[in-house]
Amino acid sequence: MHKFTCVHDIGDLREAVAEARELKRDRFRHTALGRNRTLLMLFFNASLRTRLSTQKAAMNLGMNTMVLDVNQGAWKLETERGVVMDGDRAEHLLEAIPVMGSYCDVIGVRSFARFEDKQEDYSERILEQFIRYSGRPVFSMEAATRHPLQSFADLVTIEEHKTKERPKVVLTWAPHPNALPQAVPNSFAEWMIAAGYDLVITHPAGYELAPEFVGPAKVEYDQRKALAGADFVYAKNWAAWADPNYGKVLSRDRSWTVDAEKMALTDDAFFMHCLPVRRNMIVTDEVIESPRSLVIAEAANREIAAQVVLKRMLEGLS
Amino acid sequence: MHKFTCVHDIGDLREAVAEARELKRDRFRHTALGRNRTLLMLFFNASLRTRLSTQKAAMNLGMNTMVLDVNQGAWKLETERGVVMDGDRAEHLLEAIPVMGSYCDVIGVRSFARFEDKQEDYSERILEQFIRYSGRPVFSMEAATRHPLQSFADLVTIEEHKTKERPKVVLTWAPHPNALPQAVPNSFAEWMIAAGYDLVITHPAGYELAPEFVGPAKVEYDQRKALAGADFVYAKNWAAWADPNYGKVLSRDRSWTVDAEKMALTDDAFFMHCLPVRRNMIVTDEVIESPRSLVIAEAANREIAAQVVLKRMLEGLS
Amino acid sequence: MHKFTCVHDIGDLREAVAEARELKRDRFRHTALGRNRTLLMLFFNASLRTRLSTQKAAMNLGMNTMVLDVNQGAWKLETERGVVMDGDRAEHLLEAIPVMGSYCDVIGVRSFARFEDKQEDYSERILEQFIRYSGRPVFSMEAATRHPLQSFADLVTIEEHKTKERPKVVLTWAPHPNALPQAVPNSFAEWMIAAGYDLVITHPAGYELAPEFVGPAKVEYDQRKALAGADFVYAKNWAAWADPNYGKVLSRDRSWTVDAEKMALTDDAFFMHCLPVRRNMIVTDEVIESPRSLVIAEAANREIAAQVVLKRMLEGLS
Repeated sequence: MHKFTCVHDIGDLREAVAEARELKRDRFRHTALGRNRTLLMLFFNASLRTRLSTQKAAMNLGMNTMVLDVNQGAWKLETERGVVMDGDRAEHLLEAIPVMGSYCDVIGVRSFARFEDKQEDYSERILEQFIRYSGRPVFSMEAATRHPLQSFADLVTIEEHKTKERPKVVLTWAPHPNALPQAVPNSFAEWMIAAGYDLVITHPAGYELAPEFVGPAKVEYDQRKALAGADFVYAKNWAAWADPNYGKVLSRDRSWTVDAEKMALTDDAFFMHCLPVRRNMIVTDEVIESPRSLVIAEAANREIAAQVVLKRMLEGLS
Repeated sequence: MHKFTCVHDIGDLREAVAEARELKRDRFRHTALGRNRTLLMLFFNASLRTRLSTQKAAMNLGMNTMVLDVNQGAWKLETERGVVMDGDRAEHLLEAIPVMGSYCDVIGVRSFARFEDKQEDYSERILEQFIRYSGRPVFSMEAATRHPLQSFADLVTIEEHKTKERPKVVLTWAPHPNALPQAVPNSFAEWMIAAGYDLVITHPAGYELAPEFVGPAKVEYDQRKALAGADFVYAKNWAAWADPNYGKVLSRDRSWTVDAEKMALTDDAFFMHCLPVRRNMIVTDEVIESPRSLVIAEAANREIAAQVVLKRMLEGLS
Repeated sequence: MHKFTCVHDIGDLREAVAEARELKRDRFRHTALGRNRTLLMLFFNASLRTRLSTQKAAMNLGMNTMVLDVNQGAWKLETERGVVMDGDRAEHLLEAIPVMGSYCDVIGVRSFARFEDKQEDYSERILEQFIRYSGRPVFSMEAATRHPLQSFADLVTIEEHKTKERPKVVLTWAPHPNALPQAVPNSFAEWMIAAGYDLVITHPAGYELAPEFVGPAKVEYDQRKALAGADFVYAKNWAAWADPNYGKVLSRDRSWTVDAEKMALTDDAFFMHCLPVRRNMIVTDEVIESPRSLVIAEAANREIAAQVVLKRMLEGLS
């Protein structure tokens, strides 16, 4: 595997989930695979779960790891050609990327949407430049438009808990004080659709996701109708995608908060969220602490998802 | 060992010191013990000695290590239940802690007193929440009220240098520009008393420590009287504990600085300090550079103290 | 090897280059050498290439690594004796250095010129204090006046590409928005002269380097004349060294930018720069992206240069 940026890069989902479950039973079976191999983790944005779970996954495989916080311990990078670099950007990605590639075997990159220019965000330029110029296998540790390690972990978690072949999965918008990227809902929709689940997306008007991510999913603007009969409820906030409101917060309406009364509309659904979660905005204390909450299980599966991706990348090295 | 927060967690002190001295002779004897085990070091406050010595101790045991600076590279955490999280705290400890626990085998936590609320500080909430919710063995890398790895290292250092079975140890307050927590003096008193030493505490009026830490130690307000016949002088600044001055600096009186003339009152005592030390506030250049200064030896023993704690935690894992 | 601060510490250059080329063929041949050995990397200034390449080199040798950002995650250090430390410097180097030394086997230090006091910068006090007080082998990861790991990598790169026994190497000043230290040009001159190359240095009037670094090199104020017949062109900006302009930017004249028309004056020279580089200030996109550009090769050789130094330091440990 040379890149991992979206669901299509992982190939057959049944095989991927089976591999994840096998690794979960014995995380240290492949420590020889990563011997004398180095993972470089590059953070253009802060991270807790992704940093720790990916580093742990690499160490499970016997890899060495290096972590670089680009905006904290190092340089601001220029991304354009032809610029006279007389400002605050001390280095060009076209030098920085191949150099970083020369010091490692695999690269993980985290780079969020900046909400300044939708086309720029949705072009995934930083991630694509790493794929193009680093000379190494590159995987997303959350990019502007997708968070595939999260979605893979979510898929594994659903497969571990589902009781129907094709569960009903509801992705519901919920309020948040800040403007958040669409990476998690975009990516979640993409993976749920690829898995063949019955996906319903619910949100207030104006929060429509990009059509290429919604695909064949049903969009239902009435949250209560959407939740009826759900097996899994995946809550998440995101800022508006549609013009002219790209990146804006249109609502902080707490009637969208997932509470016990809404969960009662479901088929005893499991509650899911990618974390970090704003309690009593996204979900009440009661629901997130209930026995049907899978938030910790999802997070724990992040380690396994990253380990599958790293294992495949290591296997692809000569 | 499931937790290490105070002297009582380490059990028999003679055994602990003996184990430390044995590890010191061969630091790399137990590298198999930490194989495929991961230490997560979590810093809510900055660190130099604790970070390096604990990381080194873990590597001596063959462990993998992950370091997270919570206020620098990651999130501000909410600690209360029932709060509508619409402010700047992006995550609740009740999610963050079990997630962190899922990515490691042992957790070290550093979290200082904030001096906003004495009861809050002395409840050690953050440390206690990690113990309660992480599902992993947890040790203090300095908490609000104690610094047990420091005190353990101090004990080992005294045992290495004492010439009497029950030396006279003087803990003396000394001036400092800022308001410092009571963690080091509290903890030092606790360990010296548990070790059965003759402990005298000296400080200006108003700097009384909490009675549960002073215990049977003698308090002497005249520093010169206190120092008479001392075998070990342990200098440290702390802010006031007693109400209504909790967390306040009541004095910067440099007549409390430990200098050669005061050391001459002792029985050729060794000088000790946990570092970092403000020279010519706490102690003069002359005294800290003298052959009787143990400050570097104490710091070096931090690695050994941490290694004993980690070794016992690893032995306790199934 | 107990220290590595300048070209004289590496001994015979032919042997050093030969050792580098041998390590480059098999980076993992000496993993037993670093077993249970720890490298402490200490950054008083930010770093990308040096951090990653040095950490990778240490891991290639089987070492453990610890990275400390002194101004970011830890303390401001006092460097003077006799100071009453009642300000913002929480610790004295005279305690901090031996303590750091006690937790590791080898120390790398990065500390730039501050341009406040030329004599202070050129005394290399921080680096020298580490050599004197740490009790460990110490190497420079760029100091105030030299960057020997960079120069060693540059030498290896030239040796890999030269077609004449004694190539003509031109070090040319080029414009930059900020005031940069002289460490790279000083060090580069020192190594080129030691290697016996034909070194020409060109810069606008006022940018003369210190005579002890220029040595027998020819100084030519006309950049075009200097470039005639060059085999290697090494571009770099630096701030003025000569009084009364020490540390000042005297020119941002883009007629000094290295472009294709200037490269045409050379003997089909290779283009070199230590990176990070300001494109279209130091060098045009066209030249840096041309097949004769060695900037990525130089950076990649940083890993090898560091590995030679670390290997020799490890061999010197008992």
